[in-house]
Amino acid sequence: MIYLDNAASTQIHENVLDAMLPYLKEQYGNPSSIHRYGRLANKAMEKARKQIALLINADPSEILLTSGGTESNNTALYGISEKKSHSQIITSSIEHDAILEPCKKLARNGFDIVYLPVDNLGVVNLDALQNSLSNNTCLVSIMFANNEVGTIEPISKIAKLCNEQNILFHTDAIQAVGKIPIDVKKLGVDLLSISSHKINGPKGIGALYIRNGVDIDPVILGGGQEHGLRSGTENVANIVGFGKACEIAALNLSENISHMKNLRDILVTKVLGEISGVTLNGHPEDRLPNNAHFTFLGVAGEDLIIKLDEYGIAASTGSACSVHTQKASHVLEAMGYSYEQITGSLRLTLGLFNTLEQIDETVNILKKVTAELRSVSPFKEKYSF
Amino acid sequence: MIYLDNAASTQIHENVLDAMLPYLKEQYGNPSSIHRYGRLANKAMEKARKQIALLINADPSEILLTSGGTESNNTALYGISEKKSHSQIITSSIEHDAILEPCKKLARNGFDIVYLPVDNLGVVNLDALQNSLSNNTCLVSIMFANNEVGTIEPISKIAKLCNEQNILFHTDAIQAVGKIPIDVKKLGVDLLSISSHKINGPKGIGALYIRNGVDIDPVILGGGQEHGLRSGTENVANIVGFGKACEIAALNLSENISHMKNLRDILVTKVLGEISGVTLNGHPEDRLPNNAHFTFLGVAGEDLIIKLDEYGIAASTGSACSVHTQKASHVLEAMGYSYEQITGSLRLTLGLFNTLEQIDETVNILKKVTAELRSVSPFKEKYSF
Repeated sequence: MIYLDNAASTQIHENVLDAMLPYLKEQYGNPSSIHRYGRLANKAMEKARKQIALLINADPSEILLTSGGTESNNTALYGISEKKSHSQIITSSIEHDAILEPCKKLARNGFDIVYLPVDNLGVVNLDALQNSLSNNTCLVSIMFANNEVGTIEPISKIAKLCNEQNILFHTDAIQAVGKIPIDVKKLGVDLLSISSHKINGPKGIGALYIRNGVDIDPVILGGGQEHGLRSGTENVANIVGFGKACEIAALNLSENISHMKNLRDILVTKVLGEISGVTLNGHPEDRLPNNAHFTFLGVAGEDLIIKLDEYGIAASTGSACSVHTQKASHVLEAMGYSYEQITGSLRLTLGLFNTLEQIDETVNILKKVTAELRSVSPFKEKYSF
Repeated sequence: MIYLDNAASTQIHENVLDAMLPYLKEQYGNPSSIHRYGRLANKAMEKARKQIALLINADPSEILLTSGGTESNNTALYGISEKKSHSQIITSSIEHDAILEPCKKLARNGFDIVYLPVDNLGVVNLDALQNSLSNNTCLVSIMFANNEVGTIEPISKIAKLCNEQNILFHTDAIQAVGKIPIDVKKLGVDLLSISSHKINGPKGIGALYIRNGVDIDPVILGGGQEHGLRSGTENVANIVGFGKACEIAALNLSENISHMKNLRDILVTKVLGEISGVTLNGHPEDRLPNNAHFTFLGVAGEDLIIKLDEYGIAASTGSACSVHTQKASHVLEAMGYSYEQITGSLRLTLGLFNTLEQIDETVNILKKVTAELRSVSPFKEKYSF
């Protein structure tokens, strides 16, 4: 199998699993227990918190551990908005549903939600942001990089605009962490969401960076873990694995980026050069190093990934999470894409373990599969490539 | 080490870890992905859902997967109350903080929260419940068994009272599952919380049983996983482990109960018989088979567990989660205990892997440690045992 769906989830790094195993075996204490088992679990958790913090240049005290990226995003939105009812929240029209769905709920509860437009490359309109910021804005939440088309947003500039007006800025960096060097202090962001399973860590664990001094309310209440900001017995093994994944990502960041970017560039060049009727979507330069998002005209993306799956290639049309709603990509719609362009979309996202041979094989299979599907298309006359 | 803090967390069963490992290694797909990796992850998750359902005689469609018991409890309270603002919620004064803290928040948001009193054995007053139920009650939430003193509540009777008036009944069964046979259909409960790490499964995963037909709102919003009731990429490995833990618990339920009860009874008999100035707290018969909760007069519980830890015994004064708040046990207070009785409390909770030899050793060490602590007590004249 050739796994090219690393934006959906990644393989756990073997050193990550090795780090986790003691906490799935003999170190089973509850970190809140005051006996040896508890203390060891707690110590391991705090070591992981440091590793996570280091990857984004935060202080460990600024890392809130959550059950994953979705909970991190929900916590940022609910936790900040709770402080200022009926205020304004500014976000973009291409956010992940883990931002958009809480925003819909907040809108029902009286908040004014502004969805900033993007251009046809998926870049958020900064003028629109500047015009929307007001005394009533309690939070701006713009993703670091888009999960479908891979476009990287101008986070520094957005942070600057928000900082100038003392407005809190959250960024969903779930796809960006481990693929772009991130320094929360230099960027000037106030809140930042991370997910472990996108960076070769285990699923079911994530973090929300909360800058020291930012006042936030908890979503999940109970025993008071995480200084009262996230109750529930801590998922020690996964926290340890997440920490290790961050450590590995930090150590090898530039090599990893080069590796993924190199293969991705070869993939894009070959696909565009060797298969007709294909376009690359998203920003040509300001994009995640592991993302290639195409439109194959005259082909349905779903058919393409089912065929690719038969040939042993794991790919996606866009966000894995949107499978449940079965709706057309809101990201491509916001970018002004036609129905036809949206239908033929294919996302190939690379990871640490992909090889050049896999890329070559993928291109060959893509050529074959595209030709097959187009030959039986009812629109084959129209797309006589 | 002798681990006697199984109410705080348990050792993962080796068959549980074996079941998890493929999903921490080669099966790393996102269950929402439509390629093979995704389908295999999804299939594993649905198998686990059946295993979880079977343990409590529910239908798999009635099992909502969460990040743990605390989130399950929060979801029950918020998800039901969202439907009926400013209504009444009836709970008890001895619930876990994962119930009490959300109730405090709901009270701030205009809900009327009734805290039922308990008797000195920790049994909820059913007359008070009956007198409190009204047209305005949207939910009754009473724990199945108390996490500190182990008292089992009259759940069948409570369910009957609620069912008669068509009022939804939730029970926090986190300590009860795997220690008492539970049949949600026979009991007539509408919602029931479970946690994996209390029954030899991994941490960071739990479930909320939601009877078919009960309408509930989600807490965490996003990609629409769990039929829209709990968004976020599913923690596949932990779900698989949780499923396996439920399967093992169901298969061996009566043997496990006998094993724990047998050792616990020996422990209680010896402690009460061989150490003076000790009382057993909670209900003498209607208690969890693995719970022994004592008061050692003239000794501080904290000192006792620190000393026991030095001798290699992991024990607790009460709930591990209450460590963060550093407050006296609200459970013992509600049971009418004096400051002196609360101070000297020690909880020993047994698990599958404890042995008779460990119990004998524990009693010997307890004798020694109690004598040591009492000999230096400023109240040693008062407690001249």
